[in-house]
Amino acid sequence: MKLASLKDGSRDGRLVVVSTDLTRCVPATGIAPTLQAALDRWDQTEPALRALAQRLDAGGCGDEAEVFHPIACHSPLPRAYQWADGSAYVNHVELVRRARGAELPDSFWTDPLIYQGGSDSFLDPMGPIEAASEDWGIDLEAEIAVITGDVPMGVTPEAARNCIRLVMLVNDVSLRNLIPAELAKGFGFFQSKPSSAFSPVAVTPDELGAAWDGGRVHLPLRSSINGHVLGVPNAGVDMTFDFPTLIAHAAKTRKLAAGSIIGSGTVSNRDAGGGPGRPVADGGVGYSCLAEVRMIETLLHGKPRTPFLRFGDQVRIEMLDAQGRSIFGAIEQVVARHRP
Amino acid sequence: MKLASLKDGSRDGRLVVVSTDLTRCVPATGIAPTLQAALDRWDQTEPALRALAQRLDAGGCGDEAEVFHPIACHSPLPRAYQWADGSAYVNHVELVRRARGAELPDSFWTDPLIYQGGSDSFLDPMGPIEAASEDWGIDLEAEIAVITGDVPMGVTPEAARNCIRLVMLVNDVSLRNLIPAELAKGFGFFQSKPSSAFSPVAVTPDELGAAWDGGRVHLPLRSSINGHVLGVPNAGVDMTFDFPTLIAHAAKTRKLAAGSIIGSGTVSNRDAGGGPGRPVADGGVGYSCLAEVRMIETLLHGKPRTPFLRFGDQVRIEMLDAQGRSIFGAIEQVVARHRP
Repeated sequence: MKLASLKDGSRDGRLVVVSTDLTRCVPATGIAPTLQAALDRWDQTEPALRALAQRLDAGGCGDEAEVFHPIACHSPLPRAYQWADGSAYVNHVELVRRARGAELPDSFWTDPLIYQGGSDSFLDPMGPIEAASEDWGIDLEAEIAVITGDVPMGVTPEAARNCIRLVMLVNDVSLRNLIPAELAKGFGFFQSKPSSAFSPVAVTPDELGAAWDGGRVHLPLRSSINGHVLGVPNAGVDMTFDFPTLIAHAAKTRKLAAGSIIGSGTVSNRDAGGGPGRPVADGGVGYSCLAEVRMIETLLHGKPRTPFLRFGDQVRIEMLDAQGRSIFGAIEQVVARHRP
Repeated sequence: MKLASLKDGSRDGRLVVVSTDLTRCVPATGIAPTLQAALDRWDQTEPALRALAQRLDAGGCGDEAEVFHPIACHSPLPRAYQWADGSAYVNHVELVRRARGAELPDSFWTDPLIYQGGSDSFLDPMGPIEAASEDWGIDLEAEIAVITGDVPMGVTPEAARNCIRLVMLVNDVSLRNLIPAELAKGFGFFQSKPSSAFSPVAVTPDELGAAWDGGRVHLPLRSSINGHVLGVPNAGVDMTFDFPTLIAHAAKTRKLAAGSIIGSGTVSNRDAGGGPGRPVADGGVGYSCLAEVRMIETLLHGKPRTPFLRFGDQVRIEMLDAQGRSIFGAIEQVVARHRP
């Protein structure tokens, strides 16, 4: 089952069920007005939504069905009550640290790193990434995220597997040049992590078929900038902490309410030889953010060569199934100057 | 105008207008079903809510009015889309650092410190503070918070003044013994800042009269543990960054949606002589958290003497107006062992 929130002038959009091939959709507002409302009563709404999805995919729904336009979409949850982003690809973390000469503590391989994100106003999947200045060091971070049901405090990773309701893609926009000073203050990210964007469609794990093992998505995540492929790392590879482990970490001292979004962190694969990944142009799987490109350049050449994103640059993030079909629709955003 | 969200089995509670003296309330669900819904359309809902409040305070509303019981309340926003907590009383930050031998960077007096909190499931104002272990170092933090309307990206502090819709109290529960290891990882708080609780009632700034100067609340914030007064520091004193400044900082790189909660951080006053505040028993205004008590003890005696909260301990946080009347109702919570 695939779900989306179409823009209708309201803050949360209107819930639609989308066909597996992403060509058509049908209003689901008779079942739940919004995706959050559906998640709030998932036991009741899920069967009805699935029945509607089956009818749609079978060619039913008649006049009720509409053509599905990703540009009409908000992020599946246009605003959410919880957005916690892990950094589960420890390879990525190790690279960032190495580029600035810092050691990776051993505990980072066993104790998940997670940051509390802001969730009051996500970007649209095909909306602009607005920034007041290119000097902020605007970067993408291509990631996978899950949306949970209610998660009790102290949940085990095993029990957390059953709390995963939906899967989607994320562009965790990052302002690299604001990060060092902000992290030095000791309280984590705030200004350096502005609003994120999510894929047009969120899907139930069964839509991923064999690519979903209950904790990871075993498919390449394709990122490109201005039409050039930046990376196609496999999201199932080198993910040190799977989603149930991240959820259990987030719920250690608190419960998480239905509709909580848990991110994987930037998808990042090592090279076959165990070293840092190589660029796509050199036969590698590339990268999911420019920071990683610049780190590799710093390691190789002493300083970065690739600039961060500039006004007018286009970012595209997508995941295709084994048959080459888009699963979530594409995040496709252009960086724009913010004018107050 | 005073607003509260009464428990009714739903996730967001039902909106009521509460009388200024906190004795009676009247359903406002005809105007907006929930406080978030009221904030989403504040221009439309505020006049109607104010009219209802006037009728209630004039003794009207007849059979519609109910007795107001704080124990029937959720936090005013039982779940919110944004909870960002400042650390505006730099005196508090300086003390924490001094106790562990760290310098306070000069920039901390000009660049606000703020952390991104989790907001998916706040505690009830009279509900338990659940923790799996006393070893987590359970502490209160008594604070003021405001709820904003829509805040545009890049708002100035001047313009941010007009974005403040409501004021309330917070208990920003903190797990002190989890903080050092978590902050050392560099991504800020997560497990060490579990769910917060807010006062039973949120009030419009005009309810504070002369105690509200557009940016700060000039009244003592009274915290006690097991009936013993811990502190009565004045929230208008030593607040280095006022609320409009905190809002502008939070909105530098992103907009904030209506219903965003911005906290002041632990209210903390210096002693009249300029040194750290003295305990209430020694004629000082005391403290708003146990960490500060323990820091003073560490500075004076080389180590802390006061333990953190234990199961069964009761925390009470309240603010009285110049006539001794409770403005927001009291946060009154008992620490309890979490049983999965």
